[in-house]
Amino acid sequence: MKSFTEYLWFDTQYRREMIHITDTVRNIVDKSEVQEGFVLVSAMHITAAVYVNDNESGLIEDIWEWLEGLAPYQDDYKHHMTGEDNGDAHLKNLIMHHQVIVPITEGDLDLGPWQRVFYAEFDGGRRKRVVVKVIGE
Amino acid sequence: MKSFTEYLWFDTQYRREMIHITDTVRNIVDKSEVQEGFVLVSAMHITAAVYVNDNESGLIEDIWEWLEGLAPYQDDYKHHMTGEDNGDAHLKNLIMHHQVIVPITEGDLDLGPWQRVFYAEFDGGRRKRVVVKVIGE
Amino acid sequence: MKSFTEYLWFDTQYRREMIHITDTVRNIVDKSEVQEGFVLVSAMHITAAVYVNDNESGLIEDIWEWLEGLAPYQDDYKHHMTGEDNGDAHLKNLIMHHQVIVPITEGDLDLGPWQRVFYAEFDGGRRKRVVVKVIGE
Repeated sequence: MKSFTEYLWFDTQYRREMIHITDTVRNIVDKSEVQEGFVLVSAMHITAAVYVNDNESGLIEDIWEWLEGLAPYQDDYKHHMTGEDNGDAHLKNLIMHHQVIVPITEGDLDLGPWQRVFYAEFDGGRRKRVVVKVIGE
Repeated sequence: MKSFTEYLWFDTQYRREMIHITDTVRNIVDKSEVQEGFVLVSAMHITAAVYVNDNESGLIEDIWEWLEGLAPYQDDYKHHMTGEDNGDAHLKNLIMHHQVIVPITEGDLDLGPWQRVFYAEFDGGRRKRVVVKVIGE
Repeated sequence: MKSFTEYLWFDTQYRREMIHITDTVRNIVDKSEVQEGFVLVSAMHITAAVYVNDNESGLIEDIWEWLEGLAPYQDDYKHHMTGEDNGDAHLKNLIMHHQVIVPITEGDLDLGPWQRVFYAEFDGGRRKRVVVKVIGE
């Protein structure tokens, strides 16, 4: 069994942002030389997500509006008694999930035709990290 | 390490459907001859989900009603400016998640007594695919 | 490739409870002697979740209130025609997801500084189980 680990760093200008990372993940799989296996792409923070969906700008706007409805920014989260103001970011993380596994087949990401991997930042403007870990043969 | 990959194809008659696939996944694990490992069951589309829950028809009706409340079909998604009408299906995919890992122990799916694997179609009537990938020994 | 499997049992006093299990998972990884790989932490029930987020009591209260809004306890779920009263627990499981993968790097859990692993019980007062399965080398 082979394994290969790399960390991606993000330092977004805005509080909320979606960053398309499919090609970055593919390059790491190339470097790993794994032909058959799994690559885990996992946010190392509790106020960000990693998800797979369409790279279409209208849909991305829809996702933001929808997430804001289900897990709104508001003042009165109990979490804010710690001095934080990012309670909504924790809840958005829980809906969207913080990780995906992409299967690797014949050395490439085994994704469907429209599947793309995204990092979703819910509390940006600080340096944050994603672990990309490949295992296989 | 062994690996084994198979693709399931679905061509649902209806737009929305839940399809029970536990036995199909178990058969693929049998064929893989893996005794200890993981099987990833992952939709290759952004308008479908794979999830684990109860095979109980009342609950399945509850899930549909609940999903429609949280991610409703509606005309005015921005994604629809591309000509699509399936914005809700993308959002339903995000709530339900598109993949599960089932552990394999002693050559069988290591599921709890009521856990069953389902494919959830949110935009059917076209041919769609799920990748089932086993890794282990 | 090595593999190592252990089961955690929970018998909560209350119907709903969050139980912090990061140290328990780390101990299992230690015992597995895997240096590089994945550990899957997966509820074996359809009315419980495993998730990664902050170990902060205010946030945990926020999560409960938020979950109750999105997947409320109510009498009239169709699932209750089977005699059950836990329809909400199934839906809470679907939002929160029943499993996480934690990467293992240099023999330890490769988590971010604030990431902690939790078992979330939505229908307790009975004995329930989580499978922890390590694969790697």
